[in-house]
Amino acid sequence: MKEKFAEIISIGDELLIGQVVNTNASWMAKSLNDIGINVKKITAVNDSADEIKEAISIAVKSSDIVLLTGGLGPTNDDITKEVLAEYYNSKLIFHQPTFEHIKHIFDSRHYILTEVNKKQAEVPENCIPLHNENGTAPGMWFEEDGVVLVSMPGVPFEMKRLMKEEILPRLKEKYNPNYIFHKTIMTIGVGESALADKIKDWQDNLPVSIKLAYLPQPGIVRLRMSASGDDKQKLLKEVGQYCEQLSAIIPEYIFGYDDISMQEVIGIKLKESGKTLSTVESCTGGYLAHLITSISGSSEYFMGSIISYSNNIKELIVGVDDTLINSKGAVSKEVVEQMAILGREKLTSDYCLATSGIAGPGGGTIEKPVGTVWIAIAFANGVKSAKFHFGEHRGRNIRRSALMALNMLRKELN
Amino acid sequence: MKEKFAEIISIGDELLIGQVVNTNASWMAKSLNDIGINVKKITAVNDSADEIKEAISIAVKSSDIVLLTGGLGPTNDDITKEVLAEYYNSKLIFHQPTFEHIKHIFDSRHYILTEVNKKQAEVPENCIPLHNENGTAPGMWFEEDGVVLVSMPGVPFEMKRLMKEEILPRLKEKYNPNYIFHKTIMTIGVGESALADKIKDWQDNLPVSIKLAYLPQPGIVRLRMSASGDDKQKLLKEVGQYCEQLSAIIPEYIFGYDDISMQEVIGIKLKESGKTLSTVESCTGGYLAHLITSISGSSEYFMGSIISYSNNIKELIVGVDDTLINSKGAVSKEVVEQMAILGREKLTSDYCLATSGIAGPGGGTIEKPVGTVWIAIAFANGVKSAKFHFGEHRGRNIRRSALMALNMLRKELN
Repeated sequence: MKEKFAEIISIGDELLIGQVVNTNASWMAKSLNDIGINVKKITAVNDSADEIKEAISIAVKSSDIVLLTGGLGPTNDDITKEVLAEYYNSKLIFHQPTFEHIKHIFDSRHYILTEVNKKQAEVPENCIPLHNENGTAPGMWFEEDGVVLVSMPGVPFEMKRLMKEEILPRLKEKYNPNYIFHKTIMTIGVGESALADKIKDWQDNLPVSIKLAYLPQPGIVRLRMSASGDDKQKLLKEVGQYCEQLSAIIPEYIFGYDDISMQEVIGIKLKESGKTLSTVESCTGGYLAHLITSISGSSEYFMGSIISYSNNIKELIVGVDDTLINSKGAVSKEVVEQMAILGREKLTSDYCLATSGIAGPGGGTIEKPVGTVWIAIAFANGVKSAKFHFGEHRGRNIRRSALMALNMLRKELN
Repeated sequence: MKEKFAEIISIGDELLIGQVVNTNASWMAKSLNDIGINVKKITAVNDSADEIKEAISIAVKSSDIVLLTGGLGPTNDDITKEVLAEYYNSKLIFHQPTFEHIKHIFDSRHYILTEVNKKQAEVPENCIPLHNENGTAPGMWFEEDGVVLVSMPGVPFEMKRLMKEEILPRLKEKYNPNYIFHKTIMTIGVGESALADKIKDWQDNLPVSIKLAYLPQPGIVRLRMSASGDDKQKLLKEVGQYCEQLSAIIPEYIFGYDDISMQEVIGIKLKESGKTLSTVESCTGGYLAHLITSISGSSEYFMGSIISYSNNIKELIVGVDDTLINSKGAVSKEVVEQMAILGREKLTSDYCLATSGIAGPGGGTIEKPVGTVWIAIAFANGVKSAKFHFGEHRGRNIRRSALMALNMLRKELN
């Protein structure tokens, strides 16, 4: 079957002054992808007749399906319906079932129906009106020269219900489109370009039906495989096989799949193993504990932390030897290992993660520049530690330090 | 001055499969609006040469400024630079300053520079490369037939810095658009509609040249006054006067201006007064300490924390009386006050903030439903505490608890 392409046009001034983020469009794009329709373009335009008409004219030339949202409210600034009637050279007619539905909504809320609301029951003669259970403005389905154009309100819960109950089922029935399958592989501890080097052969061997994308975040690179075709079982099997091959090439970097977070992964592993965790944090300043406790149910395995931001607290509460801090410095292998070992005892946990580093922007020296971070993990049989260089940005240093600490725990739990 | 129109083109498959919401585009639209440039269209297209070229061709016909993001990474799926060279019929040349910057980044992280990274220093001959402080791919500024086109990476923190430091100042200098002045008033401790009630008379008296927007976030409501015109001094004076009036109406809720954060405000106040701070956290799980330590220089006034996530740690490390926990429960006035008083002593600080609550989604009871949070502050002369009900969302409960704790400290420091 030939691939089908869609374009989404979002109408509304609020999108173009940056007041509202276009979450509608990404929800719609995901829904279309899920039934095998490729979205080739998303456009946001003002509530202006010329802009809307121009966007439609461009879209119908290269897409099979055009979905419009917005501009269907009862007020004067909403003009999409009039623009569509004009575009299709059609006239507005009164649609009785829509009117009954509007009347029902108003009656149930004890509102008085005005002329303005009654006008919402008018639709262009050449469209199929679609029932909008959650609102007064109907969806409108047009077909001309083999292109389907559907207009719907921009209110998210109205749009979503119309999509789910009216539009997606009709599109699926009409086009019976290809199945599209996405698999995201989550990696940590390797940069985008180094990762690309390591998996080059594997990537070069991917069939044309599977596309690969690199999606980097500070400390993490997501790899997304996207496969499309008409044989669902074959696709699933194929993606599964390439995924397994990849796991065999870079097992140490893969921590999970499909947007799972590091803190979720270690939470699951700790629960499975019945082990507990604590942290002693200097440079991460509580962010590591925050990531861990952002997961609901973390009280089952997380005992607590000591945030020893001053050396005084490292000595007083954690019990780190002050001669060690004086001789080696707070950012050192010796001190971070003591923090982890003593923290594990004091906080009565099976594992303890400790961080000590220079988050910046101040505090760096030539020997220990900003971004130098020591991380240690203590466990029943001992302690391990590693030194990292993360860079110059305070926020990202904190985030990357916390992620690498979680990664040390993940490796230990494997 | 003639109005200037911009179009934003966001490049990346992830936008069109709905994996990533296009927050970049709304941030950019807002930034352009802030300097008086209207955005007439936002388009998102795939990493496809044809799609990108078509989008550019359409954009340059009707806009004065075209801003592109995305597709500048080092890997094969990133093609924007090659497409631009082709579009402008220009060849790629090696740009030494960009290479030095890439090398600096790699050296500071102890990474090995590969050929792939070296290629990132190539730019089309006809562009002005723009320094990307936060990343390896430079911005690129093109001008042809009176239309400015700027390409930049899609990684949000790289794009934002490029926009703020390179692109917006150049656009402002080139087009000298109307002066637009924004003043944001930061409020805490009052909801959006209650705030609107309190300041109704003041708002009704604003001149038409000043627009007011309510920008709520969990725990905080920002009020943004926007004034535009060609007389800068007059605008500044007028906004200043209305700002003063507002301060007199709701002094207790205003904690600062222009997107300053609560943690910055309390940091400044602690430094001024020479006082120190610590926290003992249960439900906030380290997030309060994280907010405080996200400010550079916080080690001057922040001693540290005990995250007593389990009752065991409340007793062992903080020293809370176990009979108190058993009789009153961990989420109680008595326990949170002991946490603050004992924490202040153990962590050797002038102030100590303590939190104990039910972040959810589990753990609620009829007496203490999810969202019940006790917060205490201990100081030289005693302790104060308050009970809050924040709602059912775990992430927002944690955030609002931390902000209200900082707000208690702010009031104490005033």
